[in-house]
Amino acid sequence: MKKITIDAVNEKYNVYIGDCLHLLESYIKPKQKVLIITDETVKSLHFDTLKQYVKTPYVFSLGKIPEKDKNFITYEACVNYCLNHFLDRNLLVLAFGGGVVTDFAGFFASTYKRGIKLIHLPTTILAHDSSVGGKTALNVSQYKNVVGSFYQPKSVIYHLPFLKTLKEKDIVSGFGEIFKHDLLSEGYLLDILDKETSLYHLLYNQKLIEKIMYHSILVKKLYIEMDIYDQLGKRQFLNLGHTLGHAIERLYGYSHGEAISLGICFDLFLSDNSYYRTFYHKLIKWGYFKEKQDFDLEKIMISMKNDKKNEEDSLKFIGLYTFGQPYEIQLTEEEFIHKFKQFKQVLLCCMEK
Amino acid sequence: MKKITIDAVNEKYNVYIGDCLHLLESYIKPKQKVLIITDETVKSLHFDTLKQYVKTPYVFSLGKIPEKDKNFITYEACVNYCLNHFLDRNLLVLAFGGGVVTDFAGFFASTYKRGIKLIHLPTTILAHDSSVGGKTALNVSQYKNVVGSFYQPKSVIYHLPFLKTLKEKDIVSGFGEIFKHDLLSEGYLLDILDKETSLYHLLYNQKLIEKIMYHSILVKKLYIEMDIYDQLGKRQFLNLGHTLGHAIERLYGYSHGEAISLGICFDLFLSDNSYYRTFYHKLIKWGYFKEKQDFDLEKIMISMKNDKKNEEDSLKFIGLYTFGQPYEIQLTEEEFIHKFKQFKQVLLCCMEK
Repeated sequence: MKKITIDAVNEKYNVYIGDCLHLLESYIKPKQKVLIITDETVKSLHFDTLKQYVKTPYVFSLGKIPEKDKNFITYEACVNYCLNHFLDRNLLVLAFGGGVVTDFAGFFASTYKRGIKLIHLPTTILAHDSSVGGKTALNVSQYKNVVGSFYQPKSVIYHLPFLKTLKEKDIVSGFGEIFKHDLLSEGYLLDILDKETSLYHLLYNQKLIEKIMYHSILVKKLYIEMDIYDQLGKRQFLNLGHTLGHAIERLYGYSHGEAISLGICFDLFLSDNSYYRTFYHKLIKWGYFKEKQDFDLEKIMISMKNDKKNEEDSLKFIGLYTFGQPYEIQLTEEEFIHKFKQFKQVLLCCMEK
Repeated sequence: MKKITIDAVNEKYNVYIGDCLHLLESYIKPKQKVLIITDETVKSLHFDTLKQYVKTPYVFSLGKIPEKDKNFITYEACVNYCLNHFLDRNLLVLAFGGGVVTDFAGFFASTYKRGIKLIHLPTTILAHDSSVGGKTALNVSQYKNVVGSFYQPKSVIYHLPFLKTLKEKDIVSGFGEIFKHDLLSEGYLLDILDKETSLYHLLYNQKLIEKIMYHSILVKKLYIEMDIYDQLGKRQFLNLGHTLGHAIERLYGYSHGEAISLGICFDLFLSDNSYYRTFYHKLIKWGYFKEKQDFDLEKIMISMKNDKKNEEDSLKFIGLYTFGQPYEIQLTEEEFIHKFKQFKQVLLCCMEK
């Protein structure tokens, strides 16, 4: 088991990684009321395991496709559920699931009665990103994460055995953020993983997966601690791949990690960093981008304009001089169109074969 | 004009009180996009005055009874309005109105794109309370303020000439929180006001009203700075009168200030503080409690149990040993019923005449 301490201005908390679910017990006082927020898939797979450590919890579950429930209708249903059970400010929320659940539960915990205690119990690889750093989010209309807050959990308990039930597509999605973090440091994991022809079997090598997650969360720690509230121009580097990525995810149903992986290729391309080709071919080898897409530039543009990252009249991307050396790139709409057309030509043509 | 600086842990901001609307200009950079959140009444009365200082603002307005719109339907409408106009993270929100508007706009500003700049422009007496201290709130179902956040404005610009259009009932409501603050310090204003037979004409004595507001906000400053996030047992003293008050407000349509004034009488009664009679008679003199009510104890109980202030199996009230000496009182349901019946007998009987 490994431990990382996050120092979020006035709040410190630990992220535990490994075989660590038992640690939850130390956070639950006698008579503590506990609300588990989860989704139907995680509930059916892992609820019995979790229940060993939580006596008589309250449970609020998102559906089988939790992204569809990451909205204010479900949020209000959760508030009403708690009010109907007279759950007060001493309630402890356990966010038990992937990134959607941690985003949703984080927003709920940050706003119910102006803030209640929160612990993240991530069950996917992708959630290593959303559960650390205190960003919470809900979607409004077709726009992803346009509403949210900064709210730190009391702890993140990352019990890796939960990952064993993930499917191939979850692995593909999860590694997107791992690659991002790795590129934002020294490309150490991309080297290690180079000899792998598939990422799937890594799940059964708990020692290696623990090392990967530890490394990835450590990189995230470095960036967020420089800029907890995302106002100093440092934390934004974690948006590598996300400007194009979010639009692609929203419009074409790509998984989050797959979408941002393509976004990372584009950001590397924008920075004239020739690694974009190497990275792209690694991704193809690992099973990314199996489905051909015909991207509609205009739709992508509108979608990007309402991304929180972007400001009036300019689209923000994150370039990379070299591993660990990110910088901000601002493009006008016209520049983006020009660059994206080039990108499609030199790279995505391979994808459409 | 007077100025009070609020020190909210990592954020400091100024509250200006008096003839001070012109100060707004210094907060608006060239090209700054500005969203005014207001309500129909304030808009029709004061929008033209405000527009002198804000070029081409975006405007989102709650209805004539803004309390009815302090919910997630209206919140989402506001988010969609901003998304449709591509308003980004650099947006500045002006909360232009009474307490409902500052609560709503504060919550909106704290969550839209994970937080945007906010300035309060209170237009009522009551809003001197809600605009200082960083508490934001929305209602869910019939429950008041069960959802919210802590979010500090960049400034509070309290332009007192706006108060001149207030109606008698707004004055009655507004002074509720002023009395509360005064009792939590040394009762200085209650002394000064004793010779007044009505509070209404005070609005035309701007020097006095400035003094009153300054004093009241100064007391609030003292309590919130001890306990910005309401976790250390100090800020809760500002709930004097609010446990019973909120229930009465919700159930019987009392204005906020009238409801908490009755709640204060009850809290004083609970603390065996004989001032409750004096205070009650002053209130009657100043036009409070004109309508007879037959309080339903069971409904009041259920309503209080879902107040954020209360915890499992106990109801929290704020007692007062003497002026400026608050303490916490916890009652079981049975104890509350007993005490409230007594209170009705010794005091409210007068009210039902």
